[in-house]
Amino acid sequence: MSSLPPLSGESPPPAPRSRPGGRTARIRDQVLDAVRAELTEHGYDALTVDTVAARAGVHRTTVYRRWHDVGGLLSDVFDAATDMEWHPRDTGTLRGDLAVLNQEIQDSLTEESSIAVALIAVSFRSDEAARALRRLWEDRYTQSEIIIQRAIRRGELPADVDARALLIAATAPIYHQLVLLRTPPDPHLPDRAAASAALAACSGAFIDQRSNGAN
Amino acid sequence: MSSLPPLSGESPPPAPRSRPGGRTARIRDQVLDAVRAELTEHGYDALTVDTVAARAGVHRTTVYRRWHDVGGLLSDVFDAATDMEWHPRDTGTLRGDLAVLNQEIQDSLTEESSIAVALIAVSFRSDEAARALRRLWEDRYTQSEIIIQRAIRRGELPADVDARALLIAATAPIYHQLVLLRTPPDPHLPDRAAASAALAACSGAFIDQRSNGAN
Repeated sequence: MSSLPPLSGESPPPAPRSRPGGRTARIRDQVLDAVRAELTEHGYDALTVDTVAARAGVHRTTVYRRWHDVGGLLSDVFDAATDMEWHPRDTGTLRGDLAVLNQEIQDSLTEESSIAVALIAVSFRSDEAARALRRLWEDRYTQSEIIIQRAIRRGELPADVDARALLIAATAPIYHQLVLLRTPPDPHLPDRAAASAALAACSGAFIDQRSNGAN
Repeated sequence: MSSLPPLSGESPPPAPRSRPGGRTARIRDQVLDAVRAELTEHGYDALTVDTVAARAGVHRTTVYRRWHDVGGLLSDVFDAATDMEWHPRDTGTLRGDLAVLNQEIQDSLTEESSIAVALIAVSFRSDEAARALRRLWEDRYTQSEIIIQRAIRRGELPADVDARALLIAATAPIYHQLVLLRTPPDPHLPDRAAASAALAACSGAFIDQRSNGAN
């Protein structure tokens, strides 16, 4: 699919910033692909540098030298996802933009061998992974703020709307249902959650408390 | 605290349905208290029947006979939480009721050694725990539907509002921020999330699609 889901970091992998296209980049791609595959197939408990090296077809000393341990491998998976080019789609309406965003999130959480779900699960095991996931989400929500800025420019929303609070309200039900409540995916949920958040926002919710001094 | 947080199952423990107050009930209380303490202090990996028996001061064969294994112990912790008397508070308004519910959720997720967070973490490790957590949540959301029924009776909401969808929208941001994004607790979030969900509902969101045949 051309539209990359917000928490995924799968192929086509991004070119590393330092040495695009070289052998180093190729090895990184192979190793991170192997980490993702091992993680979704066998889980965190079975993840070792040796199994990753074997699966990637890369000498284990190369993997140890560059990534040190499982924590280093996982951090780099998150970094690769963070580096990935991703922009929320412009549908012309706030509700439409939020619905597409939610659909991408739902797709990433329900696809077979979801790397997004695997990374969330790992974040409950490793503090390093939890911090990396937090950075990745921070990055994705910051990138998504353009949705709110466009809606403000179109006059759909007041200028002092709290973009982050609105984005959280729109997307949280998808994560809650699929990751925590583990209910089967509801094909209407992405649009319904987008619609109710947009409706609340257009009715005066999510006004940034910092900008008017109220609480 | 007298108001019991939705996902907690801590003391005062409920009397088991079959033999209230007897030796069996006392042993169950001791053992489940020990499971919760071990879980919040040392995590799932360190949890064994033997450490639980030792901490509870109960003979290990008693624990093995009744609960069989760690899975059995965990299931009973979830069952105890499900059995616990809990009713959402009646504040007289939809926004107020949802804000109190959200505050209880936020308290349960941010208290020191949160059993709620520990149980959610365990649900990513054990399918049995995941199913038990799903039953517990199902139970809590069902109990919370009285909030919506009261709002319908007061004329705050239309009769065909989808109670579950509204409750998920109101509560999901609390879980998303604290459990997944792991942001520091925002004291305004319980009320803000309640307010925006209530505003959306009163503006026509969350209409039950099954009742009018639309999609």
